[in-house]
Amino acid sequence: MNDSTAALSPLSSIPLHTQLRDLLRSGILDGQYPPNTQMPSESELGTRYKVSRITVRQALGDLQKEGLIFKIHGKGTFVSKPKAFQNVSTLRGLGESMTERGFEVINRLRSFRFVPADKQVAERLGLEEGATVAQIKRVRLINREPVSLEITYLPQALGERLEKADLVTRDIFLILENDCDLHLGHADVAIDAVLADSDLTQALNVEPGSPIMHIERLTHTADGQPVDFEHLYYRGDAFQYRLRIDRERGNRP
Amino acid sequence: MNDSTAALSPLSSIPLHTQLRDLLRSGILDGQYPPNTQMPSESELGTRYKVSRITVRQALGDLQKEGLIFKIHGKGTFVSKPKAFQNVSTLRGLGESMTERGFEVINRLRSFRFVPADKQVAERLGLEEGATVAQIKRVRLINREPVSLEITYLPQALGERLEKADLVTRDIFLILENDCDLHLGHADVAIDAVLADSDLTQALNVEPGSPIMHIERLTHTADGQPVDFEHLYYRGDAFQYRLRIDRERGNRP
Repeated sequence: MNDSTAALSPLSSIPLHTQLRDLLRSGILDGQYPPNTQMPSESELGTRYKVSRITVRQALGDLQKEGLIFKIHGKGTFVSKPKAFQNVSTLRGLGESMTERGFEVINRLRSFRFVPADKQVAERLGLEEGATVAQIKRVRLINREPVSLEITYLPQALGERLEKADLVTRDIFLILENDCDLHLGHADVAIDAVLADSDLTQALNVEPGSPIMHIERLTHTADGQPVDFEHLYYRGDAFQYRLRIDRERGNRP
Repeated sequence: MNDSTAALSPLSSIPLHTQLRDLLRSGILDGQYPPNTQMPSESELGTRYKVSRITVRQALGDLQKEGLIFKIHGKGTFVSKPKAFQNVSTLRGLGESMTERGFEVINRLRSFRFVPADKQVAERLGLEEGATVAQIKRVRLINREPVSLEITYLPQALGERLEKADLVTRDIFLILENDCDLHLGHADVAIDAVLADSDLTQALNVEPGSPIMHIERLTHTADGQPVDFEHLYYRGDAFQYRLRIDRERGNRP
C-alpha cells in the first residue's frame, strides 16, 4: 500500500491520477521522499507507474495544491518542509509559543500609523467610527522565513505607548501586559481560508493566489474590555494552528 | 472614510488600487453593497474614482481573493454572501451546531469503503499499518449548498455498525454516541489552508485553486482512546470556524 514502487490498478474505479497521488502522498508522509529532496521527474514517474504524462501532472498538481510539494522553474519538483504549527488551546503570542520550542521569531515592521477607524474596527473596539486608532503592520518571520502578516488595531492611547516599544522582537501581547499593565483575558477568533492578494504576495514572498489561513482575533482584557483587534494572515504552505477541543466544557484533565 | 463616493488621494503613498480596494471593502462590509447584488462595472468604477481600468481590476482582484466578491462570466461582479460559521469552542458535529441555529444540514454520501489503513491513519487510530478501516466520504450541504468534504476513518468494527446508519441526515458523532454507546471526550485538531484539488473542485463545485480551510481532527473517547480520524475540507469562501481562546487555562466564566 505504501511502497512507492507498488503498481497502480488500471481496472479500479478509482482514477489512475488519484491512485498515483495517494501513493505519492503516502510516500511523502512516510518519509520515503524526505523534505527538500527532489521528486522523480514526470517522465520517471510515468515510466515507473506505466501512466501517461497527463496522469502524472494531475497527481503532482493535486499534491502541490495540498502544499506537500513545490516546483522550482527549470529545476523540478521538491518535497515541502513539514509545516510549523502553533498550539492555540491557550491564548499566546506567536513569539511566546514558538521561541520556547526552539524557533526564532523576528518581526519586520512594515508600518505604524494612526488612522481613522473604519466601521468594522470601530465596532470591534467599541469606538466611534472615525475615531483615531493605531494600525501596526508586521511581517513575522520564523527562523528567518516570513510566515504571517499581522495587521493590528489598538485604541489611540495604547498605540501611543507602543510607539516606543520594541516591535521587532516582542509580541504585542507581552508589551500590553508588561509595559502597559493590562491583564489580558480571552480572545474571540474566526478562522477561514483566502487567497494571497497583492499585499500578501509581496509581504510573504508567495505566488499570487497561494492559500492563506486568515484569522480575525479580538482580544479582551480580563474584565472583558476589547483592546486589540487583528487580522492575521498565515502562509498555508508553512503554518498550522493546533488545538484541543473538548466534547463538554470543563472536562479538561 | 466609508463613503463609497469618497475621492481617492492620488498624492498618497498608498497605491491607488489599495485605496480603492479598501474603500470598496468598507462598502461591502458596511452593507452599502449588499450580498448578492451586482457591483458597479469596471468602467463605472473607473469613471467614478478617476482611475484606470488596470487599477480597478487590481482592486477587484484582491477583493475576489478575499472572498468578498465573485465573478459570473458574461454577467459581472457580485457581492458574496456572509460566510456561515461554526462555533468550535466545544466539540460538536456540523449538524448539531448548525441545525439549532436554523440551518438545514444534509449530507451527500460519496463512498463507504473498507480499505487498508495507510501509515498516517494507522498511527492516528493506534492500529497496525494495513489493518482494515472504514473510509467514509461525505459532502455536507448547508441550506442545500455544498460547504465541506469530510473523509472519515474508523476502526473496522465501528465502521460495520455505521454501515446501516443514516449518514445522509445524521452527524457521525451522534451515531457513535447514540447507536454505538461511545462516550466522546476530546479531539486534537490541526487547521491550515490549501487549494482545491481535482477531488474538491468536483465535490464542492468550486473552481480549481479556490481557497480551502483544511482540518485534521482526531476524536477520542472519554477514556482517551482514538476512535475517529477525519480530514475536513471547508470552502474558504463560504465557511468560518469561530472559537474563544483564554489567556490562561481554566479562567472561563
